[in-house]
Amino acid sequence: MPDTRRRPNTQASKNVDDPLVLPPGISSHTFKDFIVRVTNIVGEHDVNVIKDVQQLGKDSYLDPSKVHDMFYIADEDYFVSSAVVAPRNVQDVQAIVRLANEFEVPLWPFSVGRNVGYGGAAPRVPGSVGLDMGKNMNKVLEVNVDGAYALVEPGVTFADLHNHLVQNNLRDKLWVDVPDLGGGSVLGNTIERGVGYTPYGDHWMMHCGLEVVLPDGNLLRTGMGALPEPGADNNLPVDQQPANKCWQLFNYGFGPYNDGIFTQSSLGIVVKMGMWLMPNPGGYQSYLITIPRDEDLHQAVEIIRPLRTAMVLQNVPTIRHILLDAAVVGDRKAYSNSDKPLTDAEMDAIAKKLNLGRWNFYGALYGPAPIRDALWQIVKASFSAIPGAKFYFPEDVPESKVLQIRHDTMQGIPSMDELKWVDWLPNGAHLFFSPIAKVTGDDAMAQYKVSRARCEEYGFDFIGDFVIGMREIHHIVCIVFDRKDPKQRRNAHELIRTLIDDAAKHGWGEYRTHLALMDQIAGTYSFNDNAQMKLNETIKNALDPKGILAPGKNGIWPKTYDADAWRVPL
Amino acid sequence: MPDTRRRPNTQASKNVDDPLVLPPGISSHTFKDFIVRVTNIVGEHDVNVIKDVQQLGKDSYLDPSKVHDMFYIADEDYFVSSAVVAPRNVQDVQAIVRLANEFEVPLWPFSVGRNVGYGGAAPRVPGSVGLDMGKNMNKVLEVNVDGAYALVEPGVTFADLHNHLVQNNLRDKLWVDVPDLGGGSVLGNTIERGVGYTPYGDHWMMHCGLEVVLPDGNLLRTGMGALPEPGADNNLPVDQQPANKCWQLFNYGFGPYNDGIFTQSSLGIVVKMGMWLMPNPGGYQSYLITIPRDEDLHQAVEIIRPLRTAMVLQNVPTIRHILLDAAVVGDRKAYSNSDKPLTDAEMDAIAKKLNLGRWNFYGALYGPAPIRDALWQIVKASFSAIPGAKFYFPEDVPESKVLQIRHDTMQGIPSMDELKWVDWLPNGAHLFFSPIAKVTGDDAMAQYKVSRARCEEYGFDFIGDFVIGMREIHHIVCIVFDRKDPKQRRNAHELIRTLIDDAAKHGWGEYRTHLALMDQIAGTYSFNDNAQMKLNETIKNALDPKGILAPGKNGIWPKTYDADAWRVPL
Repeated sequence: MPDTRRRPNTQASKNVDDPLVLPPGISSHTFKDFIVRVTNIVGEHDVNVIKDVQQLGKDSYLDPSKVHDMFYIADEDYFVSSAVVAPRNVQDVQAIVRLANEFEVPLWPFSVGRNVGYGGAAPRVPGSVGLDMGKNMNKVLEVNVDGAYALVEPGVTFADLHNHLVQNNLRDKLWVDVPDLGGGSVLGNTIERGVGYTPYGDHWMMHCGLEVVLPDGNLLRTGMGALPEPGADNNLPVDQQPANKCWQLFNYGFGPYNDGIFTQSSLGIVVKMGMWLMPNPGGYQSYLITIPRDEDLHQAVEIIRPLRTAMVLQNVPTIRHILLDAAVVGDRKAYSNSDKPLTDAEMDAIAKKLNLGRWNFYGALYGPAPIRDALWQIVKASFSAIPGAKFYFPEDVPESKVLQIRHDTMQGIPSMDELKWVDWLPNGAHLFFSPIAKVTGDDAMAQYKVSRARCEEYGFDFIGDFVIGMREIHHIVCIVFDRKDPKQRRNAHELIRTLIDDAAKHGWGEYRTHLALMDQIAGTYSFNDNAQMKLNETIKNALDPKGILAPGKNGIWPKTYDADAWRVPL
Repeated sequence: MPDTRRRPNTQASKNVDDPLVLPPGISSHTFKDFIVRVTNIVGEHDVNVIKDVQQLGKDSYLDPSKVHDMFYIADEDYFVSSAVVAPRNVQDVQAIVRLANEFEVPLWPFSVGRNVGYGGAAPRVPGSVGLDMGKNMNKVLEVNVDGAYALVEPGVTFADLHNHLVQNNLRDKLWVDVPDLGGGSVLGNTIERGVGYTPYGDHWMMHCGLEVVLPDGNLLRTGMGALPEPGADNNLPVDQQPANKCWQLFNYGFGPYNDGIFTQSSLGIVVKMGMWLMPNPGGYQSYLITIPRDEDLHQAVEIIRPLRTAMVLQNVPTIRHILLDAAVVGDRKAYSNSDKPLTDAEMDAIAKKLNLGRWNFYGALYGPAPIRDALWQIVKASFSAIPGAKFYFPEDVPESKVLQIRHDTMQGIPSMDELKWVDWLPNGAHLFFSPIAKVTGDDAMAQYKVSRARCEEYGFDFIGDFVIGMREIHHIVCIVFDRKDPKQRRNAHELIRTLIDDAAKHGWGEYRTHLALMDQIAGTYSFNDNAQMKLNETIKNALDPKGILAPGKNGIWPKTYDADAWRVPL
């Protein structure tokens, strides 16, 4: 039997109507047919064939961020869609998925495309058809005050949801948990298992109920959503049938709890998601603790661990390296003319100038004053064990820009100011290396030392922070590079590949990654001869036998694809 | 093609060596071969063929509770295993699963068999081979104080884990969350999504990391466990390889988050599970609030909702009906000679006698005194709106037996005293009807009224409570019946079938159920032409093509079984 598994297109396009990259295994002719058919579904306005990356945003409505990775580390036109299609509603999504099965065209759904540092809206398989889920499907469908939840469509950003609360005079009752940047999709961030910084920081833990289009086009509601609410109306499409009133209140339903398989996955397109909102805690106080010396990280983490597991630290606090804070308030040139990685002495000078420590701990207290006071006494006493640690409230230091931002973020007020650190370098782009760490001084120090040394070896400054979850740290290393400088881009790419290998040797694994690194990281989760990947592949092939949905996502290749042929060039 | 799908054995056994019920589709001869082969794996001592339910516990070591449902609602010998096999270790489990595939014999794993009210250790398919996971695999593999977690095998009960903490002088540091009865398996309860009553009451939310034998015998570690820890030793079996140090610290790992599909499911046998333990909160105060009138339930629930979502109520509290408390301290005869359901007047008399309300709210405060005091002020002020509500601490009313029990339970000290309510009737057995409710007065009252009326219609007292989760109620109705009275048994069975239908008509669904009701309840989660069941079946058939693992569990029938042939007789 001939091996018909999909491989990258190697021939250049011969047809003036062709996209920059055709979907693999799809001829010009078939692609054209597909575009006609998909246009019949959504209308012309919501179909865009991509012919030239450089012309994007100039000759069409289409924002380049919907087509490729704005922070590209491969060539600019490598991870790029053949076309971008924006369904108007759930029935469109179902119809497009069925069409993709008919044509065996790969689809790459994205919500709003702000998956910055991890590939944006770009597809893993060049030439996939991008599904712009957020353009037309961007409604806050419900905010329920009694149940303290929202039901959202893919296009609702954290800023949108927050603004919805403000505009409806609900912000005094309910808070949204927001990540560092408020411009991303609530749904997209959550199913990629992103985190925020209030007590509701584990977004996936705080979701409740999904509506999903499966790879065969069928529509599923998970959990209690699977139980019909009385009052079905046969004149309405299935996604508009009344929803069970406990859908956003109880996650698990009856039988296997399937929600998790739709995260970081290619098993379905989430079209609606419930999200628990945080009731106004009745009081709030953010704070900054500056920690003077590099080696104090060890002691700080040892102090933090028991406070966090005991919920004395109620939210997801962060320990930020001085250069992350420095980058938010200025670019590299503002601090140094050196073209080498900044030295410890230079970092000390920056810290002094900004009145910060080498490490800076941003936390918050929630609740009425007696509770906040009781907790603050413990926090302050604990951190006072670090010689030279200093304590600040935002009202005392209005000049402390980062504390002002974190003051908002930790109470669920979205901001876009943090992205400023990308401008550390000219044409700044970034790539996240995000290993999980134990909350111990030894582990945090070891990850810091290994990753800082490697960053410097490849010519980059270490810019990073430690995000403290319930019992682990998301260690986030921000590799900032000049995307117009091919050598820097290549160095960033080589650096992260090296870091992933370094980490695996220590038993450290990443929680999420850029398109270009998915296969490598999936390969490190190899226990018992890749038992997890075999399970993932079995489920993938059962639910998506033609492999039309996000092939290659997080290293999972359907049986219709030759995985080896899709390695990302350095 | 002939239809070879499995159906119940209809012929009586002809062979003296046969079990009471042969596995479906398996001849005497094949069964004997299977027993020889499985005995070669685990040894004679850990294989028991079941020939007679009445003789159990008399002519063999085997506890009847490992073989059938002690609280049977079908005939005593209906839900019964053909044999019970106890693997000694993970390799045994893998070998047995592979053997079951070879022979196409169905397996029914249970941990310790205390799934009371839901079927105990009995299999859904009569004649399945029971896998007694807990008999030999009962070790607390690790308690990690810094990480505040335990790693346990299936046989570890809540009492075992608590005692382990006590014996290792760790109880002042860490608490276990326990359900009403401490004799059940931590792992078994958690994967059935049971709940407890501390702030860690959502057991599934608080698990972290699974080791699972898949239906093909392969071994999986989920989450960070999929990333090998340095130091593998090729002389050791795979399950004894060093575990990733973040396995019990971070649930999600990389790629699809699969853990949920192993809950309430037939997709794998969980052989190790990580469980987060609650750090000693630094202070504890339990309390009882008595609520005098039946109709006060409405107001009480309305008071509870905002307090619970705001975490002023920090744990999983309960509102218990007077007859539940009454049953814990005495049997029915101690209160009444009536053979009719107790009247409101009789309930009022019982409440007066026991110095309780018609409803009784058991909660607790956690943390240092200033925090407890601040929370108690809010709680007390809120409940004081109910005329006649009274407030008690356990130290003030040593005679209040239930408060003394709840005082232990809400701080993670296991007890077996609650099961006393089963003795409400002679030969008392019970069956749980467990619908999920919104946390609103209207919903709680409606569920109470519908279920109480039906209970009384079928001749039973309403005995129940409301267990308050984060944003929903597990409403637990305890149908107590005399299992030696065939008419009562039948009435209990008819009652629960009727209640399930009643509930579905209101849009209420159950979170868990007895073997006999699994198909009916699965059928109520029917949104969009049973989309959820179709997904479950597709995954089941992909992972377990021969259908050897727990066929029929929670209504999921493998393609090798004729689902219609397995309806449970009334």
